[in-house]
Amino acid sequence: MINDLNEIKLKVQEYLEQLSYFTATPEHGITRLPFSKEARQTVDYLKNIMKEIGLDVSEDNAGSVIGKFNSEEDNTPSIIIGSHYDSVKCGGNFDGIAGIICGLEVARKLKEKNIKLKYSLEVMGINDEEGVRFGTGFFGTKAMMGMITLDDLSKYKDENNISIYQAMKEYGLQPKKIVDMSRNTNTIKSFIEIHIEQGPILENNKKDIGVVEYIVGMQRYIISIFGRADHAGSTPMEMRSDAMETASKVIGNIGEWARSENNGTVATVGYIKSFPNAINIIPEKVEFSVDIRSKDSKSIKRVFDKISENIKMLCSEYGTKYAIESKLSELPAKLNDKLMEQISTICHEKGYKNQKIDSGAGHDSLVMSKHVNTAMVFVPSKGGRSHCMEEWTDYEDLAKVIDVIYKLVLDLNHQ
Amino acid sequence: MINDLNEIKLKVQEYLEQLSYFTATPEHGITRLPFSKEARQTVDYLKNIMKEIGLDVSEDNAGSVIGKFNSEEDNTPSIIIGSHYDSVKCGGNFDGIAGIICGLEVARKLKEKNIKLKYSLEVMGINDEEGVRFGTGFFGTKAMMGMITLDDLSKYKDENNISIYQAMKEYGLQPKKIVDMSRNTNTIKSFIEIHIEQGPILENNKKDIGVVEYIVGMQRYIISIFGRADHAGSTPMEMRSDAMETASKVIGNIGEWARSENNGTVATVGYIKSFPNAINIIPEKVEFSVDIRSKDSKSIKRVFDKISENIKMLCSEYGTKYAIESKLSELPAKLNDKLMEQISTICHEKGYKNQKIDSGAGHDSLVMSKHVNTAMVFVPSKGGRSHCMEEWTDYEDLAKVIDVIYKLVLDLNHQ
Repeated sequence: MINDLNEIKLKVQEYLEQLSYFTATPEHGITRLPFSKEARQTVDYLKNIMKEIGLDVSEDNAGSVIGKFNSEEDNTPSIIIGSHYDSVKCGGNFDGIAGIICGLEVARKLKEKNIKLKYSLEVMGINDEEGVRFGTGFFGTKAMMGMITLDDLSKYKDENNISIYQAMKEYGLQPKKIVDMSRNTNTIKSFIEIHIEQGPILENNKKDIGVVEYIVGMQRYIISIFGRADHAGSTPMEMRSDAMETASKVIGNIGEWARSENNGTVATVGYIKSFPNAINIIPEKVEFSVDIRSKDSKSIKRVFDKISENIKMLCSEYGTKYAIESKLSELPAKLNDKLMEQISTICHEKGYKNQKIDSGAGHDSLVMSKHVNTAMVFVPSKGGRSHCMEEWTDYEDLAKVIDVIYKLVLDLNHQ
Repeated sequence: MINDLNEIKLKVQEYLEQLSYFTATPEHGITRLPFSKEARQTVDYLKNIMKEIGLDVSEDNAGSVIGKFNSEEDNTPSIIIGSHYDSVKCGGNFDGIAGIICGLEVARKLKEKNIKLKYSLEVMGINDEEGVRFGTGFFGTKAMMGMITLDDLSKYKDENNISIYQAMKEYGLQPKKIVDMSRNTNTIKSFIEIHIEQGPILENNKKDIGVVEYIVGMQRYIISIFGRADHAGSTPMEMRSDAMETASKVIGNIGEWARSENNGTVATVGYIKSFPNAINIIPEKVEFSVDIRSKDSKSIKRVFDKISENIKMLCSEYGTKYAIESKLSELPAKLNDKLMEQISTICHEKGYKNQKIDSGAGHDSLVMSKHVNTAMVFVPSKGGRSHCMEEWTDYEDLAKVIDVIYKLVLDLNHQ
């Protein structure tokens, strides 16, 4: 039982406020891309907290940082409480990082109370979940689960044409050994992720905690439409091969196709680039991203099929060409029923209002749930806002989730 | 009569090939933005040719360069042969600059033959016709005609937030004196522009020369759609305010609206920018350009009205907002009938196949024709390609047009 929730709340606030300085875009929110200076600052800061708590500190070869509270017993698997420390561009101060700080406070309480652990506890600050820099995602957990190959490291590059391989090397890691870091799932008892909701549901329903049931599957593509660069004034409409006309017609339909699935399926075009991007030149190329998510993988496929059929038709109509590159493909996941049940029970005992909820965002739990028993809890996001500076979660709500997960770890130790 | 057209052709080729080195994007076509290093190199190169011919060389306060062959008589107005030396980004090696070189060869012939001029001849290398850097256009001719104010210089900025004012100052000009450079139209007898067609009509019709009748009017806008940045996964479709969905739906319609005018009206969206332009964030802002051109100003207005009505409707439907900024507005122009007639007659006499043609591109002649007698001739463009590296015009065709304009200047001197 934790009695000093107010003290914990203040500590979480202090840490998160300090961490907000490690951003590439001061005054414009958090930009903490993988393998960057800000990533290094953040990891070093987390290491200091881990040492202060008395955890064994290490970094893995994917850039994740781990603080371990060792079990009294030999060769027992670990309970991992993990979340990511990287961010989107100009994002908020809670997405990812808040879950690591909560995990650390759970570990601190266990240490303070001199609990003897049956299973070791690892608090993990995971690298590159967002995938913003290289257009990928879930790098830290995928690497841990042996799902990243040496080829992947060279294949994916950032906007300055730096590959993951090169970025890892410059960060001091050993990209050639990426496959060796694959972790035996026998070493993991369960994976628990604490995260902000990033949506409006818990706030609207006045709940303290969300127990995640499904994490949506997602597919991400970069689609390129190829036309011909010509003079915007002297090229008659009927002689054009205008990449923008084809691209905009497809993009304009994507929202409707997602809505027509009628099951919470979402689709987003967040990125677009026109070449040469000049007022008076017909675009010779337009590339854009498509991000489709649903708890039903058939819905994802249906939306994607409509997009590719529409592109094919439009390209034939407007004399353009196209290429579709898949950047990410994840099946939906249902999390562990027993863990869900235990968390709900703890919430009930402690008087925290909770509900089952689906996650529309991808999370490291999506990767982990395919390998080990996984639970995920959501904390309310003010106004549902996320991936922006306005992102906010009450520190009090974070203290409540620390209280719940602390009890869960104790319970798991008695099983 | 010019007898050495082959020699002229080789000289034109040599000059244009040399000038192609003055680009900010070597191997990727010509990028010669106003007030840049490449602009300075080009002007200096043109000055050297002017001196070699024996012209009086000067630069005006808008960055245009002038080589003058003085009349024997006092206080006579000038015939100006002018075209622009700036380019689009990654454009071709003929657009604009070829017309200056042709003008200089006309002047050289007149000098060589010791012609006594009744009207002075000025060959002018005009600055910033394209308007690519500051999103404007016709800077050199508008400044000459007193149509640029001191306010304009501060108002328009390039993508690095440098104003025309600042760029002029750094280039060594005196922005504060911009209004003083306004030229009395009594000092101009006529303005003649030689330019590549930038379209496919002359080549398709197997003509040597096009005598321009109308120059289309044009309007350019930057349209901004404002939405709300939210997480691309956890924000349900019905709670979004997606700037990209609104923008793409409008853009997708613009081509149809131009085609439906059925009179050669064209509309182009060449530039687009999404904010923050990330795969997994719903765009909070999308800005794009619209460029509409027609010889009928009612058509331009109709297309623009459809765009703004559609935006208004879509913003109300999708909970987005918008702003429309006008960047350029030019009425269509009919060029001087008498000059057209004279040029057609000369072509006929010399056996050059010619036709009347409308210009779908804006040109300095569009500005000049509203103040002085103006003629414009087109030289065929291979495949109609322009504003791209593939832009090509045969040097032989440029020699023919030099032959024609040389005769026109002689004829004008006898009037």
